[in-house]
Amino acid sequence: MDSRATRAGRQPFHWQTAIGYKTRDKIVVRGYDLNALAGNVSFPEMAYLVWRGELPPAPHGRMLDAILVSMAEHAFSPSSAASRLVTSGGVPLHVGVAGGLLALGSLHGTADRPAALFKDAAARMKRENLTPDEIGRRVAGEARRAGQRLPGFHHPQHIRDPRTARLLELSDAWEISGAHVAVARAIEAATEEFWGRRIYLNGPGAVGAICADMGFDSELIKGIFLLSRTVSLVAHTYEEAHRERGWRGSEHTPVVQPLDLSLQGPEFYDGPPDRTLPRDRRGGGE
Amino acid sequence: MDSRATRAGRQPFHWQTAIGYKTRDKIVVRGYDLNALAGNVSFPEMAYLVWRGELPPAPHGRMLDAILVSMAEHAFSPSSAASRLVTSGGVPLHVGVAGGLLALGSLHGTADRPAALFKDAAARMKRENLTPDEIGRRVAGEARRAGQRLPGFHHPQHIRDPRTARLLELSDAWEISGAHVAVARAIEAATEEFWGRRIYLNGPGAVGAICADMGFDSELIKGIFLLSRTVSLVAHTYEEAHRERGWRGSEHTPVVQPLDLSLQGPEFYDGPPDRTLPRDRRGGGE
Amino acid sequence: MDSRATRAGRQPFHWQTAIGYKTRDKIVVRGYDLNALAGNVSFPEMAYLVWRGELPPAPHGRMLDAILVSMAEHAFSPSSAASRLVTSGGVPLHVGVAGGLLALGSLHGTADRPAALFKDAAARMKRENLTPDEIGRRVAGEARRAGQRLPGFHHPQHIRDPRTARLLELSDAWEISGAHVAVARAIEAATEEFWGRRIYLNGPGAVGAICADMGFDSELIKGIFLLSRTVSLVAHTYEEAHRERGWRGSEHTPVVQPLDLSLQGPEFYDGPPDRTLPRDRRGGGE
Amino acid sequence: MDSRATRAGRQPFHWQTAIGYKTRDKIVVRGYDLNALAGNVSFPEMAYLVWRGELPPAPHGRMLDAILVSMAEHAFSPSSAASRLVTSGGVPLHVGVAGGLLALGSLHGTADRPAALFKDAAARMKRENLTPDEIGRRVAGEARRAGQRLPGFHHPQHIRDPRTARLLELSDAWEISGAHVAVARAIEAATEEFWGRRIYLNGPGAVGAICADMGFDSELIKGIFLLSRTVSLVAHTYEEAHRERGWRGSEHTPVVQPLDLSLQGPEFYDGPPDRTLPRDRRGGGE
Repeated sequence: MDSRATRAGRQPFHWQTAIGYKTRDKIVVRGYDLNALAGNVSFPEMAYLVWRGELPPAPHGRMLDAILVSMAEHAFSPSSAASRLVTSGGVPLHVGVAGGLLALGSLHGTADRPAALFKDAAARMKRENLTPDEIGRRVAGEARRAGQRLPGFHHPQHIRDPRTARLLELSDAWEISGAHVAVARAIEAATEEFWGRRIYLNGPGAVGAICADMGFDSELIKGIFLLSRTVSLVAHTYEEAHRERGWRGSEHTPVVQPLDLSLQGPEFYDGPPDRTLPRDRRGGGE
Repeated sequence: MDSRATRAGRQPFHWQTAIGYKTRDKIVVRGYDLNALAGNVSFPEMAYLVWRGELPPAPHGRMLDAILVSMAEHAFSPSSAASRLVTSGGVPLHVGVAGGLLALGSLHGTADRPAALFKDAAARMKRENLTPDEIGRRVAGEARRAGQRLPGFHHPQHIRDPRTARLLELSDAWEISGAHVAVARAIEAATEEFWGRRIYLNGPGAVGAICADMGFDSELIKGIFLLSRTVSLVAHTYEEAHRERGWRGSEHTPVVQPLDLSLQGPEFYDGPPDRTLPRDRRGGGE
Repeated sequence: MDSRATRAGRQPFHWQTAIGYKTRDKIVVRGYDLNALAGNVSFPEMAYLVWRGELPPAPHGRMLDAILVSMAEHAFSPSSAASRLVTSGGVPLHVGVAGGLLALGSLHGTADRPAALFKDAAARMKRENLTPDEIGRRVAGEARRAGQRLPGFHHPQHIRDPRTARLLELSDAWEISGAHVAVARAIEAATEEFWGRRIYLNGPGAVGAICADMGFDSELIKGIFLLSRTVSLVAHTYEEAHRERGWRGSEHTPVVQPLDLSLQGPEFYDGPPDRTLPRDRRGGGE
Repeated sequence: MDSRATRAGRQPFHWQTAIGYKTRDKIVVRGYDLNALAGNVSFPEMAYLVWRGELPPAPHGRMLDAILVSMAEHAFSPSSAASRLVTSGGVPLHVGVAGGLLALGSLHGTADRPAALFKDAAARMKRENLTPDEIGRRVAGEARRAGQRLPGFHHPQHIRDPRTARLLELSDAWEISGAHVAVARAIEAATEEFWGRRIYLNGPGAVGAICADMGFDSELIKGIFLLSRTVSLVAHTYEEAHRERGWRGSEHTPVVQPLDLSLQGPEFYDGPPDRTLPRDRRGGGE
């Protein structure tokens, strides 16, 4: 190494990081001893710290927690189906999970894209001194005239995504909703004028708006989705490995992989029947 | 499809799942409406529910939370380095994260393997009516004589992994520690006799023992590690993408990727200086 | 670096490799200048050289070429379906290809497993001084009694895999077939006695036997399959990206992904009609 | 399924493909029986057929063969290093290979990007009725003024990539070089005027120009690179698994992963010494 350093006249490359470091005796994350964090901060707060460098304000930690819960499972989709197909080839758990993650591209799990839209719109609202309604009408109208979809709006399976109302309710209750949520709502309202029917803000759209109000960079909003959906991919990979036979489909057991919503309903579900949360669980976030 | 169904004389394959289902109007996970969960259960509790079908007892939820925090970041390792190298090739965030996840194989992030060891040992302890000390001495002695490593013991970088004591402290305080933690401790104690020095239970080993006492299947313990470490992989991928130049290493900027512990110490860290948790954060788990 | 080297008393780790090296002026692979190889050796010969360190005898190069062609495309399977699902999430080409590769685990594309079986059997035949027929009957009989499948035998979709006869024909013509092919044939013949019907050697089984006769390590036989099938995964990823709409399946366009053989027949194929090779292409290998 | 089809009023989604199909008795690829292809067409010709639907003219088949050889191995890079790091975590061969493939993003293995540049330039040359020299000066001058790099030019490790001359020599000899190669050469020549020194066409740049002259879509040119480099990734994954110890780096064996060119030279290579091709191999392509 000496000769090399001499030859090049400078130190070899090393990664420089602001995330953390470890020594023989401790692990330090963003300045905090890891052992002081474990047991004292929640896992969502830990993610916030690792990603952004500071612990979140308490309402932001709770909101991030609720978002991670809300996006954690959505039955069959390209990612869970990819995890299952990869798993059917005979692989360890972590490979099935990674296979599913690969599907979370620019068309799947895209809370980052509506966040970018709402950030642009909120900045323009401020710059041009507009009201939310005014910017909402401009954004919706311009998209309609250009024949473009609005990222974060419409859900082909739900039409009106049930997750949206719940997330916005929490965001309002915890006083997180700000300019980005306002813009998102205004765009939704304005769709009626330009499409002739309401195009609803979907779950990832709500996540994008709320996380923008929490100051998240758009790429890290994608990271939130990846972390959340990893829960689902572990479950689908595990279930596939334990319940299905692996890849030896035969003439006698046709293998048609159903991604159709109509094949994902209660008739193909055999888990616990519908039930309500224990009383002591309810109301925490309401 | 009619003709096909007729031809084959049976229904086409579809995945049957116990995880959840969705309809136009709701998303149901293990029987619960997703909207009732968001805001009312923590993300670790949600993972427990999605994976195991039931919400955890409160101490188990808190313990899982602490474990997820404790394994979430460990500076440079094959997985974070793989994420960074993949990212240097010019890929979206989710691809860098998946690239790192692929490295979490049988030699990296292996809380599942010590869990399997402790489960075998605890079952044998019961079957043969032994005390923890007796089974600990048998397991350690047999491994030593066979020239085998004990999964979950020793950490090459820390020697005595700092995470272990903290995790066991919480597990004891929350009355989770049972037969598997007892066996793990007994094996550690017995190493002194057979190796001539103490071989310490490491962090993943502690996770394996505690999760076994919480009734987790070994494969799902791997899932816990995958979920936890996804936090780190998002951070390293994001930092690499924003801080490094991508793959155009040149003669003039030698690229030596440092995985040596000595290159991971404070001298290459430029995040916040060491600091303590705000007072109102401390004591929660202690 | 000086202080570090001093502190540790030894050189930092570096990968040592026997595959090749590069300098400012040349790229050397297994001792050969890359530019002397390009245009003078075929791509299958290059793969053989990179993997095994020497150029193959000419018949081995041709046989490897034929094997790579024979395994390059097999319509829908877990790997091509995984590539398509990953692609439907909106990712670059190389990510779709990698997603499909992940599915090529221990149950898919497994020429390495029959190779291991034939190597064990051939070694035992020699050790115990048996004829191929004798070892074939022992292997088949033992598997049947133990209730085990024989890796490399039976194809659920073809029953009698059409690729097998062609590959063995070439292997015989080019005088490659040796002890491993003999054992594979003998095991197939013996299945009639123990199963009451012939269980045919399948395509990957033939690949395993022939490659074992060419002296390939079993793991590299898996490498052959990975290289070959990459052709298919590029094609399916590319077709999916250009032909399908991406992940926005709707109520109005049900998405059922068909892996059933009956959905892979001519009625869902719209490429060129069946045709024969130009005359000047025929006979090369026959 | 009947009820579902009825409910929706149309057939369920299925993938429609022009690549091939299989029945119980045969496998058909782009209209040809797979068995007629094996032994009669080369693997590069097969890739061409699977990707583009037709067998290539003979010189195109040979050129594609030479390109696949030329890009098959390039010592350490983000992709081979990622394969090795993933492998060090303890995974099967195909997972190490896929991990390396993930790194082949927009900054690594990018013959597709220069191809796009040359296609644009060639189209403009024709449209504006320019000579190659004229379009070369315009493209180089515009890039220089805009402060942009030219994709396919300059190689940080080689400066003048040794592969370029060999590939262009073959492309000329086989009369493949056309407008795109002419444009690539003209741009290179024009760099002297605008940068004050010659910026050389690199290997992937040459591949891009030649493949454009063979009529390849840019994305499929990326596919060529992926197929070629899979050879390398299998070799590095295999060598890592058999030669290194896996992820248990210790205080006593510092792990510095060297990607510096100076650590990739002959002093860290222990394969066969430099040698020349056997006489009967030489001249084939020269």
